[in-house]
Amino acid sequence: MSKKVYEYEVGEKFITFFYVKSVTKGVASNQKSFLTITLQDQSGEIDAKIWDVTAEQEEIYKEGAVVKVEGELHDYRGRLQLKLKQIRIVTENDEVNFDDFFARAPLSKEELFESITKYINNMKNEKIRKLTDFLVSKHQKEYLEYPAATKNHHEFVSGLAYHVHCMLRLGESIANLYPSINKDVLYAGIILHDLGKVTELSGPVSTKYTVEGNLLGHISLIAIEIGNAAIELGIEGEEEVTVLQHLVLSHHGKYEYGSPKLPLIKEAEILHYIDNIDAKMNMLDRALERVEPGEFTERVFALENRSFYKPKL
Amino acid sequence: MSKKVYEYEVGEKFITFFYVKSVTKGVASNQKSFLTITLQDQSGEIDAKIWDVTAEQEEIYKEGAVVKVEGELHDYRGRLQLKLKQIRIVTENDEVNFDDFFARAPLSKEELFESITKYINNMKNEKIRKLTDFLVSKHQKEYLEYPAATKNHHEFVSGLAYHVHCMLRLGESIANLYPSINKDVLYAGIILHDLGKVTELSGPVSTKYTVEGNLLGHISLIAIEIGNAAIELGIEGEEEVTVLQHLVLSHHGKYEYGSPKLPLIKEAEILHYIDNIDAKMNMLDRALERVEPGEFTERVFALENRSFYKPKL
Amino acid sequence: MSKKVYEYEVGEKFITFFYVKSVTKGVASNQKSFLTITLQDQSGEIDAKIWDVTAEQEEIYKEGAVVKVEGELHDYRGRLQLKLKQIRIVTENDEVNFDDFFARAPLSKEELFESITKYINNMKNEKIRKLTDFLVSKHQKEYLEYPAATKNHHEFVSGLAYHVHCMLRLGESIANLYPSINKDVLYAGIILHDLGKVTELSGPVSTKYTVEGNLLGHISLIAIEIGNAAIELGIEGEEEVTVLQHLVLSHHGKYEYGSPKLPLIKEAEILHYIDNIDAKMNMLDRALERVEPGEFTERVFALENRSFYKPKL
Amino acid sequence: MSKKVYEYEVGEKFITFFYVKSVTKGVASNQKSFLTITLQDQSGEIDAKIWDVTAEQEEIYKEGAVVKVEGELHDYRGRLQLKLKQIRIVTENDEVNFDDFFARAPLSKEELFESITKYINNMKNEKIRKLTDFLVSKHQKEYLEYPAATKNHHEFVSGLAYHVHCMLRLGESIANLYPSINKDVLYAGIILHDLGKVTELSGPVSTKYTVEGNLLGHISLIAIEIGNAAIELGIEGEEEVTVLQHLVLSHHGKYEYGSPKLPLIKEAEILHYIDNIDAKMNMLDRALERVEPGEFTERVFALENRSFYKPKL
Amino acid sequence: MSKKVYEYEVGEKFITFFYVKSVTKGVASNQKSFLTITLQDQSGEIDAKIWDVTAEQEEIYKEGAVVKVEGELHDYRGRLQLKLKQIRIVTENDEVNFDDFFARAPLSKEELFESITKYINNMKNEKIRKLTDFLVSKHQKEYLEYPAATKNHHEFVSGLAYHVHCMLRLGESIANLYPSINKDVLYAGIILHDLGKVTELSGPVSTKYTVEGNLLGHISLIAIEIGNAAIELGIEGEEEVTVLQHLVLSHHGKYEYGSPKLPLIKEAEILHYIDNIDAKMNMLDRALERVEPGEFTERVFALENRSFYKPKL
Amino acid sequence: MSKKVYEYEVGEKFITFFYVKSVTKGVASNQKSFLTITLQDQSGEIDAKIWDVTAEQEEIYKEGAVVKVEGELHDYRGRLQLKLKQIRIVTENDEVNFDDFFARAPLSKEELFESITKYINNMKNEKIRKLTDFLVSKHQKEYLEYPAATKNHHEFVSGLAYHVHCMLRLGESIANLYPSINKDVLYAGIILHDLGKVTELSGPVSTKYTVEGNLLGHISLIAIEIGNAAIELGIEGEEEVTVLQHLVLSHHGKYEYGSPKLPLIKEAEILHYIDNIDAKMNMLDRALERVEPGEFTERVFALENRSFYKPKL
Repeated sequence: MSKKVYEYEVGEKFITFFYVKSVTKGVASNQKSFLTITLQDQSGEIDAKIWDVTAEQEEIYKEGAVVKVEGELHDYRGRLQLKLKQIRIVTENDEVNFDDFFARAPLSKEELFESITKYINNMKNEKIRKLTDFLVSKHQKEYLEYPAATKNHHEFVSGLAYHVHCMLRLGESIANLYPSINKDVLYAGIILHDLGKVTELSGPVSTKYTVEGNLLGHISLIAIEIGNAAIELGIEGEEEVTVLQHLVLSHHGKYEYGSPKLPLIKEAEILHYIDNIDAKMNMLDRALERVEPGEFTERVFALENRSFYKPKL
Repeated sequence: MSKKVYEYEVGEKFITFFYVKSVTKGVASNQKSFLTITLQDQSGEIDAKIWDVTAEQEEIYKEGAVVKVEGELHDYRGRLQLKLKQIRIVTENDEVNFDDFFARAPLSKEELFESITKYINNMKNEKIRKLTDFLVSKHQKEYLEYPAATKNHHEFVSGLAYHVHCMLRLGESIANLYPSINKDVLYAGIILHDLGKVTELSGPVSTKYTVEGNLLGHISLIAIEIGNAAIELGIEGEEEVTVLQHLVLSHHGKYEYGSPKLPLIKEAEILHYIDNIDAKMNMLDRALERVEPGEFTERVFALENRSFYKPKL
Repeated sequence: MSKKVYEYEVGEKFITFFYVKSVTKGVASNQKSFLTITLQDQSGEIDAKIWDVTAEQEEIYKEGAVVKVEGELHDYRGRLQLKLKQIRIVTENDEVNFDDFFARAPLSKEELFESITKYINNMKNEKIRKLTDFLVSKHQKEYLEYPAATKNHHEFVSGLAYHVHCMLRLGESIANLYPSINKDVLYAGIILHDLGKVTELSGPVSTKYTVEGNLLGHISLIAIEIGNAAIELGIEGEEEVTVLQHLVLSHHGKYEYGSPKLPLIKEAEILHYIDNIDAKMNMLDRALERVEPGEFTERVFALENRSFYKPKL
Repeated sequence: MSKKVYEYEVGEKFITFFYVKSVTKGVASNQKSFLTITLQDQSGEIDAKIWDVTAEQEEIYKEGAVVKVEGELHDYRGRLQLKLKQIRIVTENDEVNFDDFFARAPLSKEELFESITKYINNMKNEKIRKLTDFLVSKHQKEYLEYPAATKNHHEFVSGLAYHVHCMLRLGESIANLYPSINKDVLYAGIILHDLGKVTELSGPVSTKYTVEGNLLGHISLIAIEIGNAAIELGIEGEEEVTVLQHLVLSHHGKYEYGSPKLPLIKEAEILHYIDNIDAKMNMLDRALERVEPGEFTERVFALENRSFYKPKL
Repeated sequence: MSKKVYEYEVGEKFITFFYVKSVTKGVASNQKSFLTITLQDQSGEIDAKIWDVTAEQEEIYKEGAVVKVEGELHDYRGRLQLKLKQIRIVTENDEVNFDDFFARAPLSKEELFESITKYINNMKNEKIRKLTDFLVSKHQKEYLEYPAATKNHHEFVSGLAYHVHCMLRLGESIANLYPSINKDVLYAGIILHDLGKVTELSGPVSTKYTVEGNLLGHISLIAIEIGNAAIELGIEGEEEVTVLQHLVLSHHGKYEYGSPKLPLIKEAEILHYIDNIDAKMNMLDRALERVEPGEFTERVFALENRSFYKPKL
Repeated sequence: MSKKVYEYEVGEKFITFFYVKSVTKGVASNQKSFLTITLQDQSGEIDAKIWDVTAEQEEIYKEGAVVKVEGELHDYRGRLQLKLKQIRIVTENDEVNFDDFFARAPLSKEELFESITKYINNMKNEKIRKLTDFLVSKHQKEYLEYPAATKNHHEFVSGLAYHVHCMLRLGESIANLYPSINKDVLYAGIILHDLGKVTELSGPVSTKYTVEGNLLGHISLIAIEIGNAAIELGIEGEEEVTVLQHLVLSHHGKYEYGSPKLPLIKEAEILHYIDNIDAKMNMLDRALERVEPGEFTERVFALENRSFYKPKL
């Protein structure tokens, strides 16, 4: 399983394993049913079709299945498609490693935990340190496994913690250049800003929005969590609590992006910028990796649908 | 103190008492200092100037003072102004009633409490009833005294509870016409929607925004309070809690008005409309009261700066 | 014909009658022509395909035909589709009732007429009463049969009059709570606000926009009609006429929704809200009827593309 | 009265006559009343102050008065102001000509009428010609006297007819270059587009909005008038009527400028452009006349608040 | 080759020649590859499909090929499609004229050059004349051959020069009506405004955006060119240069259309309008040509997606 | 001259020197002229009034004068104002240092030049290095002296170079964290992005917009300069030139901020963020310096009019 689907050329034939991300059923012009299955490995996703599908096939090719396929890469209207020759469900003998199908952060959960913990331990303000530590500890497992989003940026296993890790390093650089920044406030803001995603999202793979996520959103969810934690820690009503709640509430930077308050504290404004830069660098790097110098990328929806140029320099 | 400032005609002379709402100092073209004081009685506010002011006068004419004035009503560029003849601080002998200076709801605190309580007691869903009761009881004193806003609508003593009372009656009418509405959810949403204002605002008179109000806003404040209350009542994680948090988060109806979520539940959508109708009727009635049939009102800022017409029908 | 298409389960087979709402022709990958026909019964619409279609078939399966079909319900990419086994045009022997294919208001034309007439007869202002009566009488037949729109809300037979009926009841509730409202003006505004739709739309079924509808719009059409009626009734230039024209012109509430004037009269503002609430309740109820508690509806285009949640309470 | 106020230099002293356009009263820091009067001659307007004003003076210096003043031109914060030395009401002996105070179109009413009539008479479509002629004849007096607006462009006596005259000449040029344009439709659209202003505005001088103007607007007013005229002429329901109503309804070109319909006919689109070009040229010429080459004009509100440059070429 | 594809009726069979504008490959439900080829003649474009395509066919049916086809016109979901019976690459014997496949301006390159040159030669300002002449001469070949855009308006051979020619005639008409306009500035602005398109676009046929075009845009490209030309002609720093650069920079009229400056000179404002009118007349005429009186056109994307009506007058 | 105006308390009396930044004339209610002069020292600006001003005084108190004043600090409606006791023009004996009146960057011109030069010298791409060096050398004097803007941020002597210096250090940090960034492109973009301001603005003090600045803007001015420089250096048409022109054109990030192109290259996107962060930190630091912990700042216009909170942490 060394070679991934996005490393093949159009026209190339191959035999490999995939995780079935989703399945939809249709009726072809010959009146027979067919399945469109979205297959996933670490490099990305690809669609394939199973024609003249039987009731038994419908039963086994479902979201979450792992399959072995023989196929060929096609280009259908500028979009890659897998033309299947053979497909079957894996057996124990295939010895596939479930983890091989999911993209994950370049750092391990342990490394990410160590990195984030170091920033917490160095905080000088006792209340901020305790509050941050309490909430990270409470959700530690999910915090280290969840993606940062269902799509667009850092949508891979441990994407949330990796995004936080990169933002902390960026925040540290900026705080060193602008000494008026309160590092404790900024770092706690970074660590907590997306923590509500462990409730908003369903899990590390095949990630969807939960009912709570849809109705309340990660921004309000973490503000509420901070409120609860403050009571538990006996620091309810302290300015530190209000300040951190303000940072998480305002970190989307604009009302139309779902922040009920605009940033009104210097560190809140900076947090918004750091979040943006890290998310955009992640999207840009991935879009640009797939094109050659002198070419333009596909349009990137979350970057105002722009198509970026990769200079030949 | 029967006749109020907005009942006088331009040019009319009178002697009466006022509450000093705010004071600012300036320097006149004759190089001498003067004070602009905003005087308030139940009918509204009016500006007056104290020229050639002495240090002693500056000391006594401050926000919160109560004064006796002799003056005459002027029209200065379309705006009423009070031309002072005499002014002095009241003494015990004046026997003024502090309450006479502040507009207040047409119903007493007791009546408002009784009205709201009845809706709570009739709720059939135990969790919703307990949660609503818990939060109203916790903040009962402020809830019955605070205005609904610092300006625009229901900005008078008990304005918050009166606004809720009117919305409940309107909500009841609508729920009777559209039977698919869940009354418990709608009534609880109405009762709680602005409860965060008891933290966002500073008090019943000379009302300002608190630091918490500025940084978090009443929408997030009440969502957090509901979260805390749910823990206290042992119903954390129940759908009732999420639903009520959604109603309060979405009740402004649009991102640009500070709601981090749009209404996604039928009762949330209706709550938003009921809030709007009651607030607008309050603004419209007051603006139209001050003009004659056949005239247009002053522009009303919170109604998109429109100037409304009072038909001669 | 008791069971409707939206009451079947995916996979269920059935034999029933449909009205052919529209037909489009295509060429399949086997180079043969096929028809996509949209079939309609009271519960909604469903697409089906007739493959390898002959010239004779093309001739008979047209908009407005009524057909008997044997088929099975499929789910094609999340959208229901009817897989045809057999189809034929109905004969006299089938004894179908044309009315059975069209959704209609829950009240009969007679009931709606009676309800609306009662509000008119109770008006105290003679000019308003006469004007309203004149226009309703002039267009009585269409007024009682037309839908309120081609899609989105009240898009069924008698939808227009039913929408008016519900708005009148809502308006009455609100006017009782806010006594400063002029009931004659509000009720006349409600009754006339969408009357221009009898000219804007083509008819009660297979409804389209007319040329006049496209070029002038129902808002201007009714304003013009009121102008003509005023002349006919000899009340041209009276304030009642201007006020009612203002109410219909401004009832969409915003320039971008096609109102050339914003509401500048209290009853105009209220009319806009009542129209919105009734239209939205109608859309919400229908979207929510099709999902189970704990589920989200399909996105509703006319409600800002939101997907609503049906609580499990 | 040959020299006008805008021809004087700052610091220059002069004796001349003015029309009093408006008056407001204030109270000075010495506690005495003063009047701010806006004086007008053909070249523009200027403010002056009458200090320590007596009750008698208040009585005579009112809107519509004509005064003789001796004064000096001052520059107050970049705005011209007249410093009064003497002021008195004119007497019969002064022999002032009322018309001298009002800017008017460069063509006489007779010339304008002749120009517009020629375009009407040359129309080939009988229905369009009759409809246009009927409405111009009905409002002939006001049509030839009214301004095109209360401010911004063509806000002078006969401004409405002059604006139409210029637009007709521009329309003729364009129609000659793009022969697919229907000249009858375009010319009738030009002649009628602002005719509703004779009802929307109060008169040729000291022009204000009427109640009907505020509530209905000139766009709907003329659409209604066309509807009435069509009945009177027995051409109700003809496509010519609908087309002309569409042209006037859509001539502002955008919803947010008060058009309930966007232009959907070629001549409607062109009408919108012609209206814009003529209005903007009028505003630009007047703003640029007041500055020297190499300078920027004052900001022009109706041109998106831009400040225009007058090149030294 | 006299009859063009847009002159055939649906269902009509014909044999003709086409230019292959673009080709995409797909996989059909029978698992075989097919090509979708866009064929072009002077009247427009049409899609066709080659089923069960061989590797050799893929090799020869490429963008830029010229083919002879036998086929039949179909209507597929409201869109015309060509059903191929036979197709082959043309040979020398077919004697096709390459130019026959491309729409072109109604005037020849020589006529356009003569028209534009006359306007340049009549300029009185030496610097403006030299600058304009220098840039037109430098890019003369491309200027006379390029389209004005890749789609929407004047997207045919010599479309750029034809658009300029029409704008010059329109500009001349307007300047004659408003004598304050500086003709030299306006004409030079018209001639230069889109000259950057010779760098922004790839060529007269199968036109695409170049990398420079994507990254800099024709607006900045021509501003830079004027800067370079000014140095070459020794008139760097002259006001004429700045004024012309301003005209080209601001000619889109709004920031959101890519103009970094709004028009701040009278001729810049007029240039923007002239550009708009000519582009819109071109789009309107073509959309309306394809429908009958009494019908609405297809939606025109570049005209705010409006669907225009062709009156029956 | 050690104590600056913003270090005094309200009510404090002092004798000091100021630079006269601007002067406007008015007429007081006593009919006499007065001057409002804006006085400036390094700490900021303050207004004062000279009453009953003589013609001689008007002549000497002009923009650019240096004065000695005796006065007292007042608070006029929340705004500081200087009440003058005495004022006179300085003489040689006063020995004022002109530089003392102007705020300047915390680094000297020499330090800034050295910092920027180091980044240029380290560039590896020869063409980028030469182009950057050429343009910095050409405008070296102004580049090191000019402010970065007339107001809002870095509006002090050497503000432009200091802003570039800070952005370079921030860019270096970010490029170290995201190694895919091309440092040469980013650094050259930072150094050149605002270079057009040396033409757009009038000079280091009393800074205004030039005619070229108003008509073309610094964004287009520097794009044109790069074009000219490329010709001079013989690298016209090279991708490096296009890329740098793209970076400067797109650095405002949005059309509505005057960028004719959105960022389409990774380094362009990052440049936009770096520019924003440094400008905002500069504005935030200055606004927050003037308030105490626990207070809100004045509204900052260029930060969406927000009022920021200074936490008590």
